[in-house]
Amino acid sequence: MSVLFTNAAVLTMDGSREPLKNAFVAVERHKITYVGAERPEGVFDRVVDCSGKVMMPGFVNAHTHLPMTLMRGYGGGHDLQTWLYDYIFPAEAKLDPRAVAAGTDLGLAEMIATGVTCVADMYMHTGVIADRIVKAGLSANLSCGGVYFGAAEEFSPDKCNDCRNQQELTDSWHNYGGGQIRVDASIHGEYTSNAPLWRWMSDYAQKHGLRMHAHISETVSEHQASISRHGRTPVQVLGDHGAWENGGIAAHCVYTTPEDWEIMKDKSVTCVHNPWSNLKLGSGIAPVPAMLKAGVNVALGSDGMSSHNSADLFSDMKLAAALHCGAGRDPMAMGAWDALEMATVRGARALGRTDTGVIAPGYVADLILVDFTAPNLMPCHDPAENLVFSAHGSNVVMNMARGQVIYENGEFFTIDLARVRSEVEGYALPLLFG
Amino acid sequence: MSVLFTNAAVLTMDGSREPLKNAFVAVERHKITYVGAERPEGVFDRVVDCSGKVMMPGFVNAHTHLPMTLMRGYGGGHDLQTWLYDYIFPAEAKLDPRAVAAGTDLGLAEMIATGVTCVADMYMHTGVIADRIVKAGLSANLSCGGVYFGAAEEFSPDKCNDCRNQQELTDSWHNYGGGQIRVDASIHGEYTSNAPLWRWMSDYAQKHGLRMHAHISETVSEHQASISRHGRTPVQVLGDHGAWENGGIAAHCVYTTPEDWEIMKDKSVTCVHNPWSNLKLGSGIAPVPAMLKAGVNVALGSDGMSSHNSADLFSDMKLAAALHCGAGRDPMAMGAWDALEMATVRGARALGRTDTGVIAPGYVADLILVDFTAPNLMPCHDPAENLVFSAHGSNVVMNMARGQVIYENGEFFTIDLARVRSEVEGYALPLLFG
Repeated sequence: MSVLFTNAAVLTMDGSREPLKNAFVAVERHKITYVGAERPEGVFDRVVDCSGKVMMPGFVNAHTHLPMTLMRGYGGGHDLQTWLYDYIFPAEAKLDPRAVAAGTDLGLAEMIATGVTCVADMYMHTGVIADRIVKAGLSANLSCGGVYFGAAEEFSPDKCNDCRNQQELTDSWHNYGGGQIRVDASIHGEYTSNAPLWRWMSDYAQKHGLRMHAHISETVSEHQASISRHGRTPVQVLGDHGAWENGGIAAHCVYTTPEDWEIMKDKSVTCVHNPWSNLKLGSGIAPVPAMLKAGVNVALGSDGMSSHNSADLFSDMKLAAALHCGAGRDPMAMGAWDALEMATVRGARALGRTDTGVIAPGYVADLILVDFTAPNLMPCHDPAENLVFSAHGSNVVMNMARGQVIYENGEFFTIDLARVRSEVEGYALPLLFG
Repeated sequence: MSVLFTNAAVLTMDGSREPLKNAFVAVERHKITYVGAERPEGVFDRVVDCSGKVMMPGFVNAHTHLPMTLMRGYGGGHDLQTWLYDYIFPAEAKLDPRAVAAGTDLGLAEMIATGVTCVADMYMHTGVIADRIVKAGLSANLSCGGVYFGAAEEFSPDKCNDCRNQQELTDSWHNYGGGQIRVDASIHGEYTSNAPLWRWMSDYAQKHGLRMHAHISETVSEHQASISRHGRTPVQVLGDHGAWENGGIAAHCVYTTPEDWEIMKDKSVTCVHNPWSNLKLGSGIAPVPAMLKAGVNVALGSDGMSSHNSADLFSDMKLAAALHCGAGRDPMAMGAWDALEMATVRGARALGRTDTGVIAPGYVADLILVDFTAPNLMPCHDPAENLVFSAHGSNVVMNMARGQVIYENGEFFTIDLARVRSEVEGYALPLLFG
């Protein structure tokens, strides 16, 4: 399949902040082959006129828990402990592969319709998630969120469920589909495991060339408990055990310190900022402008739909761009382009992917079209300002992932929404909450 | 025209937090005549099956500047002074009635499509705005934002443009259409006028039974300058001159004090919280939980589209519900119901309207239907959580204002969007920015 986009206004995200006008973009199989002012040679299976639309890279949702879409809004209005122990954990305990598949598909449908082409997910039943993502046509870095609650002296990889899960996941899925699926090693968090798991997982990651995905300093109590236990912050103590040697994702980082940022910068560890989740759960406001200034890569995540309740990264971009201006009383603290970079090219970097997040020849054809004739995007003095502060996922009229049109004008081509609804309502919800 | 809604899940906002299920709601002409479990007697012109949808009151956008929709995203990425003096003020200086009409219609189109049925607007050419709102079918409190930059000793009502504007506006529009339009008195802000205008406007308001609409303590510099000039905060110094005797709207209130809140509570002055505008412009975070606790009524506003860039009050509800939890590190600081009340019944109270913002017999039929079969609203464990944290304006499938269906399934019935686009692109934008 080859596609030629014509009359395209393009935010390439290649470092230039000047949108292209009336450009041609060619896609052959899963790659972008041409971006430029002249119509390229050749015959194309399809020509898409982009008049009135803006093209940009598809979003990278760099920290989420897809199956938790089943728990959207469940237990809202309670304090954190009640919410976790009385609502989320009991529901999670009932999950089975079929429910995980249904929840993943539901989350993917919302993400696809709102412009996501690539995700970093951490959850159990990870192989099921991989299978659903491949069927949906997206790319993903997947991890199982390793926990170990046993005594340190009794640890052995054979008795650690998540060590086995990690091995099985890597063996079955790492680099599936020419990199469509990549497997990350994972420590769920400093507070849900201890040193033997950190050492085992870090060694395993180095042996197999995997990156790490962990929750880091999401709440002040988690951060301070690590210092009490180890005299070290979560970033530091995991680093002491070798967790960051191949780089990776530190999700949240609300209470990370300048010393942590030095480590993150040196080891190519990305802070994935989840601003809605951090606000809603009362966690706090991550020091994103300071991290960016310190040279840390910062990307964006929605977190799970149980804590944020929406997968629409337009909304996360807007919050990331505005929140730090208000919290710091500085309208220049962050801007539209910072948010666009966090949601695209910086997200790709978070996942160790150098072939997505930018619209340029040789990159994977992960791109979206946004309808700028919608009333909420009129007038357009500046496409970047409108994309970040005025647009919403419902303005996305095409999602192309890996060169395949997976969504167009409200229609899904890789997900059967009626079947998903039936699985969610007929099977998953009765199982978890019935 | 009479309409019967059947199978309705209803958030009545009448104080009960238990949504009705399978309810009937009847509307005759512009009023709600019945809400209940039994099908009411009578023949209806239209029967609307609400299966899969949730009904709630239409939103009250309690502080906005509709014509500024023409400046959406204009001058973004600059500091406040550059943005105002190099971008906004020069464009505003070129406005004429035709451009104001076009900008108002564009803003109204976005508001109608996202569920607003009532607004409090403050802007120049106010009569033009009134005319467009009546044609669009909404209700509004309108004010001209009185400024006076002359010397205090030279003030006379005849030489004060906004005194004349206020008089003309009141004479032409106050209580038009049985209260569809109400005129508010207005002091733009403490920092854009002085004592003679405050006294004249306050006397005028009392004489004509008008409420007051003012910007209050939006930035720390504005707040502190008032204390330097008068030894009093903006709420206090305007109150000293009689501004609050009939109650009204204090927009922003980011730096108001507990002493201010006592005055606001006593005088029925509503804080209109504009959380997106306050973040984006670097103004700060208003102490909303403390104001609510002090007994101050708090409502929601989008502010102008030049500072917030979007009119979608779903997004303002979500931010109001989440922001203060994160800023205060307390997940219980605000919740979904607080935000729903701010956007509906508390907004009505802000405008001095006791007949909207609630779905109950005798109230004006200002209501919306939200499609809960959309992927982003599945599953639904709690309609209030989904409405506030997961929904977006694009989920609104019907807007009924004053008993008239003004929007349904993407179609506008009182605004000709093609004509608006042509007026905006063909006339207003070249005039302001050409």
